[in-house]
Amino acid sequence: MVSSEARKEPAAIVPDTVVMKFGGTSVASPDDLKRAARRIVAARERGQSVVAVLSARGKTTDELVAMAYEISDAPVARELDMLLSTGERQSCALCAMAIADMGYEAISLTGSQAGIVTDSSHTKARILDVQADRIRAALSSGQIVLVAGFQGVSTDSNDVTTLGRGGSDTTAVALAAALGAGVCEIYTDVAGVFTADPRIVPDARKLELLSFEEMLEMSASGAGVLQLRSVEYGRNHDVRIHCRSSFDDAPGTLVLPESETLERPFVTAVTHSENEARVTLAGIADEPGVAGRIFTALADANVDVDMIIQNEPVSTDHGADLSFTIERGDLAAATSALERTDLATPILTDDRIGKVSVIGAGMRSHPGVARDVFNALGELGINIQMISTSPIKISCVIAVDRVADAVRGLHDAFGLDRDEVLAEDPHGSAHHPRVRA
Amino acid sequence: MVSSEARKEPAAIVPDTVVMKFGGTSVASPDDLKRAARRIVAARERGQSVVAVLSARGKTTDELVAMAYEISDAPVARELDMLLSTGERQSCALCAMAIADMGYEAISLTGSQAGIVTDSSHTKARILDVQADRIRAALSSGQIVLVAGFQGVSTDSNDVTTLGRGGSDTTAVALAAALGAGVCEIYTDVAGVFTADPRIVPDARKLELLSFEEMLEMSASGAGVLQLRSVEYGRNHDVRIHCRSSFDDAPGTLVLPESETLERPFVTAVTHSENEARVTLAGIADEPGVAGRIFTALADANVDVDMIIQNEPVSTDHGADLSFTIERGDLAAATSALERTDLATPILTDDRIGKVSVIGAGMRSHPGVARDVFNALGELGINIQMISTSPIKISCVIAVDRVADAVRGLHDAFGLDRDEVLAEDPHGSAHHPRVRA
Repeated sequence: MVSSEARKEPAAIVPDTVVMKFGGTSVASPDDLKRAARRIVAARERGQSVVAVLSARGKTTDELVAMAYEISDAPVARELDMLLSTGERQSCALCAMAIADMGYEAISLTGSQAGIVTDSSHTKARILDVQADRIRAALSSGQIVLVAGFQGVSTDSNDVTTLGRGGSDTTAVALAAALGAGVCEIYTDVAGVFTADPRIVPDARKLELLSFEEMLEMSASGAGVLQLRSVEYGRNHDVRIHCRSSFDDAPGTLVLPESETLERPFVTAVTHSENEARVTLAGIADEPGVAGRIFTALADANVDVDMIIQNEPVSTDHGADLSFTIERGDLAAATSALERTDLATPILTDDRIGKVSVIGAGMRSHPGVARDVFNALGELGINIQMISTSPIKISCVIAVDRVADAVRGLHDAFGLDRDEVLAEDPHGSAHHPRVRA
Repeated sequence: MVSSEARKEPAAIVPDTVVMKFGGTSVASPDDLKRAARRIVAARERGQSVVAVLSARGKTTDELVAMAYEISDAPVARELDMLLSTGERQSCALCAMAIADMGYEAISLTGSQAGIVTDSSHTKARILDVQADRIRAALSSGQIVLVAGFQGVSTDSNDVTTLGRGGSDTTAVALAAALGAGVCEIYTDVAGVFTADPRIVPDARKLELLSFEEMLEMSASGAGVLQLRSVEYGRNHDVRIHCRSSFDDAPGTLVLPESETLERPFVTAVTHSENEARVTLAGIADEPGVAGRIFTALADANVDVDMIIQNEPVSTDHGADLSFTIERGDLAAATSALERTDLATPILTDDRIGKVSVIGAGMRSHPGVARDVFNALGELGINIQMISTSPIKISCVIAVDRVADAVRGLHDAFGLDRDEVLAEDPHGSAHHPRVRA
């Protein structure tokens, strides 16, 4: 039950309200949907008020996108949103039917009905407000509420908007914040967040907890478990996120404010991406405004830039070399955007690169980590092409065909297969630290 | 352009506004969708303000229904509506993309966004109001408006509702009425309304015009071209309906008020249904209230009853025999509903029956038509099991395996392969009376 205090002060934690989010693989088949429904009902039977956010089933969104491109080479963004928003609605309606068969009353809501108010940036809208009155009323009357993820309604024109790929995570975290839910549970087909990708490192361990900052760095550097924006939203609104498997009951990985993560190891995890490309502009004029023109052109073409390196010109007549990395899928858009500028410099590209990153809040107090990373890669004979660091992350761009070796080597070098040092077990006595995906 | 007068008095005819409705086969493939888009754009290029109502593509609705029954044997009606409403939204979004590629601005609207306000009878909602302000504003700004058919939003709870199978026809006619459109064009995969089903009667003719009353009788007795409720809505709101093919430009069949149909032949068309079943309750008590209990039980089980015959009891101890016909698919529901009553009479059923109907506004002044129908069937050796008449219709229940013979015999007996007698050609000189589907 949502108390009347929660209604007045939505940010106050209401521990008996839980927001559960189920990803596409967790609702793909009728059996999957019924499994999700049972989990929702189980929480309800424990006395919790349950809001569940559902993604589109299986490959539905991909199929809808393909449908759009069968019709048009450049689908209108507003209409793409109208089209893509239907997948999550179907999941929610079907799940409500399954829950009704289990003897509980459930109501499915569109993003608009759930009060997810966004700006008008179709296909990548940002949540401006969550007006959860209808959800609160439904919870108060004992209903289970199912909300179509990934979508909202625009303030100005009352149009359907979508939040971009993975946006259902953000829907769930935003609802948890608005409802003052004790936790936002993100159910996927993996058991939690691992010290590395278990497909590459067989003895990777599931992490019991992570700070928001670590999770942000991991999401930004290749870990696909949580959408970056949902982690930002969780950090900004103080919503703890529990990433766990929809296929078993073992606890997953809890993402918490850093103040609650206590003592942490130097390095928490190794992440990687094999989906990168590098662009180098050789000998650009070393004068103010050039870089601005380049990255404006890229932003206008919707290309997200990851690492940027500019070295000093060796002589004034050579100019500077500027390199940056982007997603490989954006390479064509990036080069054509750059060709339309008046830079008149050669554009060199490399689409055979990848990235490995070492992440850990403990790095802040242990400056030797960078040295250890470079040494480990050096011992494997892996050439580092670019480096980017933050206080809790070191990323290296390397040849794509050495990425798996690098991940295994770094995982080994930092002893990540061994148990973490933890001052407190956040899951209590029922915790099984070695359950895998 | 919609004039400001039209805005104040929506019922006034605004001849340059047209509502076009495209059925599922007319938007099934990408090519079909683009063909519909071209037709919409062509009307816009002729200077018309265009509102297009789209059905779900091809078999989409059937697939969604199947999905629901994979999850639940008895899907919750509210959630079924949420699920089924997505198909039409997809069609509209995709068509808007196609129109944008043709250089025109189009906007897709859900039933709710289009202002289709209904009652709360999920899966069979009735339209209570059409609040077309958003459509008028979009038309005024030069946009083409695409409306998801078959759906609306309920007044009391702001939920998605659907209007029942074929409901997109009603959406289109209701919008035409609200906007004061000159005509509502219903595009399907057939060329119009025929004197009989051309698959059974090869020389069936396309009818140029029909009165609302005739079309109502035809829709009610097996002609699948237009949903019954859309014809009722058209008659009640004086919206002329043009049934035509989405695959060519030939005019189809215009459905008009009877005052505009002028002189009509005795018989306009022969319709049939092979989808019937008969239930007979033998020897029920001949006392007040019995029939009421029977048909209340059937209505509660959502069984639509067509013909009803009750004969007088031959003696007071035998009781009366009551027979009625229903759709064959409802037979199991009907018998189980009747078994739950306390009638304690034998329930006899026959699922091998069909129905042929002869329809024509001219019958009113030509009482010999019934005799001619019975004679024609008698000459074919076809036994008539039940008869039902209206001022402009004669229906006979016969064995299902004689239905095709009966349709051909009646079509021939009334000379329907010959040109109609018409005082005026409503389509002008461009009319091609013999174009077929």
